[in-house]
Amino acid sequence: MSRHYDTVTFLSDYGRTDEFVGVVHSVIRSLAPATTVIDLTHDITPYDVRGGGLLLARSVQYLCPGVVVAVVDPGVATERRAIAVEVGDGESVLIGPDNGLLAPAVAMCGGATRAFSLTNADYHLEAPGPTFAGRDVFAPAAAYLCAGIPLETLGEEVDPNLLLPGILPVTRLEDGDLHAEVLWVDRYGNAQLNLDPDELDEFAGAGEPVTLTFADQSRTAQRVRVYADVRVGEVGLVTDSYGLVAIAVDRGSAASELGLTPGTLVVVSTIDDGGRSVAVSTPVSLGRTNAPRAFTTNPEEPR
Amino acid sequence: MSRHYDTVTFLSDYGRTDEFVGVVHSVIRSLAPATTVIDLTHDITPYDVRGGGLLLARSVQYLCPGVVVAVVDPGVATERRAIAVEVGDGESVLIGPDNGLLAPAVAMCGGATRAFSLTNADYHLEAPGPTFAGRDVFAPAAAYLCAGIPLETLGEEVDPNLLLPGILPVTRLEDGDLHAEVLWVDRYGNAQLNLDPDELDEFAGAGEPVTLTFADQSRTAQRVRVYADVRVGEVGLVTDSYGLVAIAVDRGSAASELGLTPGTLVVVSTIDDGGRSVAVSTPVSLGRTNAPRAFTTNPEEPR
Amino acid sequence: MSRHYDTVTFLSDYGRTDEFVGVVHSVIRSLAPATTVIDLTHDITPYDVRGGGLLLARSVQYLCPGVVVAVVDPGVATERRAIAVEVGDGESVLIGPDNGLLAPAVAMCGGATRAFSLTNADYHLEAPGPTFAGRDVFAPAAAYLCAGIPLETLGEEVDPNLLLPGILPVTRLEDGDLHAEVLWVDRYGNAQLNLDPDELDEFAGAGEPVTLTFADQSRTAQRVRVYADVRVGEVGLVTDSYGLVAIAVDRGSAASELGLTPGTLVVVSTIDDGGRSVAVSTPVSLGRTNAPRAFTTNPEEPR
Repeated sequence: MSRHYDTVTFLSDYGRTDEFVGVVHSVIRSLAPATTVIDLTHDITPYDVRGGGLLLARSVQYLCPGVVVAVVDPGVATERRAIAVEVGDGESVLIGPDNGLLAPAVAMCGGATRAFSLTNADYHLEAPGPTFAGRDVFAPAAAYLCAGIPLETLGEEVDPNLLLPGILPVTRLEDGDLHAEVLWVDRYGNAQLNLDPDELDEFAGAGEPVTLTFADQSRTAQRVRVYADVRVGEVGLVTDSYGLVAIAVDRGSAASELGLTPGTLVVVSTIDDGGRSVAVSTPVSLGRTNAPRAFTTNPEEPR
Repeated sequence: MSRHYDTVTFLSDYGRTDEFVGVVHSVIRSLAPATTVIDLTHDITPYDVRGGGLLLARSVQYLCPGVVVAVVDPGVATERRAIAVEVGDGESVLIGPDNGLLAPAVAMCGGATRAFSLTNADYHLEAPGPTFAGRDVFAPAAAYLCAGIPLETLGEEVDPNLLLPGILPVTRLEDGDLHAEVLWVDRYGNAQLNLDPDELDEFAGAGEPVTLTFADQSRTAQRVRVYADVRVGEVGLVTDSYGLVAIAVDRGSAASELGLTPGTLVVVSTIDDGGRSVAVSTPVSLGRTNAPRAFTTNPEEPR
Repeated sequence: MSRHYDTVTFLSDYGRTDEFVGVVHSVIRSLAPATTVIDLTHDITPYDVRGGGLLLARSVQYLCPGVVVAVVDPGVATERRAIAVEVGDGESVLIGPDNGLLAPAVAMCGGATRAFSLTNADYHLEAPGPTFAGRDVFAPAAAYLCAGIPLETLGEEVDPNLLLPGILPVTRLEDGDLHAEVLWVDRYGNAQLNLDPDELDEFAGAGEPVTLTFADQSRTAQRVRVYADVRVGEVGLVTDSYGLVAIAVDRGSAASELGLTPGTLVVVSTIDDGGRSVAVSTPVSLGRTNAPRAFTTNPEEPR
């Protein structure tokens, strides 16, 4: 028996200036009128598969169960596969190119339970030129799922272990320093690191200031509870709303003041070079305190 | 008995590049699937509480009754309160930080009938770090209201008179001149003033040209009926579609040609310094001709 | 008997920074709550009627049947008419200013079956100043149609042949060269020409490279199947996803590298000046392989 999906969450690097996003919405509504489409963002930097994958991984635990369509697709119309990845035993399905874009989010959901290559052209739109995959392949697949077509009808099953993996960079200990990396710069200029607050506490001592070295500068960074606690002229380290360590400055953009962009290496050192505790490099976890089902935004049922 | 709300209007300074807006939509859909979310805008300049408050005040008379979520929140995760303000005896509820953002719109709706501080954590999402208030507090509050949870369940009642007031700047008469202020520059570069056309008529004579002085320049401005009537090289004063006086130039941006930004002081003088009539400084009114209920877009029932 | 419409597709040059788009959504929801509004784009360059008309013509074959509201309106509040154009014997209705904006899309749908001037003020919103036509005229018209009001109630019927025509530029043969024009530059910098691949084949020989001359430069262009086949340093000609010829470069912006913008004249010459075949200048066709009904995204019913 096929599940009933009624929500499509849609993420791309299409921008909003052209008609691409609107056309995808319209194709879905034509094929599955009762579906609600939620735009996650369409302002991924063109072709930035890593940035798109990280954004989806951050978001996935808050998404409404259903279908996700993600399109950052430098290899469109080449031999890269179009895939649909089922997670949570069918609670949700992620659709997109097989280029690593979906992988971090799939991992956040506990891994794929099944995967299919979208090879059944009966469920594509006929294209007047080479395929515009969002319009002609991904949107119809999402819509047909919402219209009740079983996932296995859309193409041939593939081994989830053979999908292209995504890269979620982990910290590493090198010469007694902790090497981290900027994952994301948000609208307010805060620079999220691939660093868990517990890992930082273990490395430097709970709440202790540290030295950050990046590009050609070193700065002392204070640990603070919230953005508003960063003092003028100071660099702060905040646990952000996703539970990771972020670099912040007072009411300004840490990224532009300090020259940080996604991918910037940030070397964390203790202030006192002696007596450093031994850090254990742990994989980053974007999860909420409770292990995410795939997906759920439901908090505890309120009393 | 609780009212039934099925529309959430959503305004923020989140931008659309990050996933914030999409996540808020998804949280609302997870908790109250039958709700429609309308994005008013998310491009308020970061932290610009005044600009956000004015935009909401302009819009409120056209909004579909229901719930409004407004987030421009420099003090997030500090001791500022998260509030829900009821207007029109429950016809609509405005949710956001208690920092003056909601106040001009609440005033436009005839004032608050009740107000609550969103202190009941049973109706928040559990956050992995400090609160992302839009996602963890405001969106769930809006969704639970739409799901039928009574407003008084979301937290403790507060006196509406103790909410932080918003600032809607009024004109003033000084040395025989009328001191006005740019409230808003729209996409086309028209600069809306906090000036009612009737007040201008009373000050300068109906339809009479005036001298405008701002920054370091003075310009003669003609009164015209519509933007298309401004002649090449001329500065025009138009009654805009919200019923306020706006500065316009011919098919160009008055704001960039004249150096006007929100907050710019504009001194209005009569051309003939003698015989000036006495102006009475009146509070700005953004309302439609008929007093707005809270809210209604319904025109007269067509015959 | 009146048709039932439940989808409004909305296109404008309003941008998303001001509240215009959200207010239009809200007006529609207030008057016709069961309607779904799809945003095609709101980032048409202000006043660019040609760009808006081309975008709508490209998209129309993929739109969900229903109502379209299109607003690029330099003559707002002048004597230009507000119109509603019926296509496909009532399958869809396009609403907007009578300034040529709707015309290319109407032509794509096989022409107007009826047209009305939106003169019945009972179906407008009352405006506090001059009309904001999107909010006060076009959105209410769309909403009332979705609420079941018959089209002929909204105003007086006009002869579709007297509507302002749109301009869809055609290629022409001049001194043995093919003069084409850039219609559109997409987000990725690909420059779509008003040139059909068959016409190019006929002119230069199937798949043959050609010389392109624009601004002050000439470049040899290779015919390739997909964007990914363009080699480094090369200029490629691709059949794009709308079935027209586009100029592309390898993983970059052809438009910015070559200085192409909408309207740029591109002269196509054969490499070998002798033996040129005679080209027949044909009108551009944006259609899908199968003649579009007005509108339909439905592919063949899958087996």
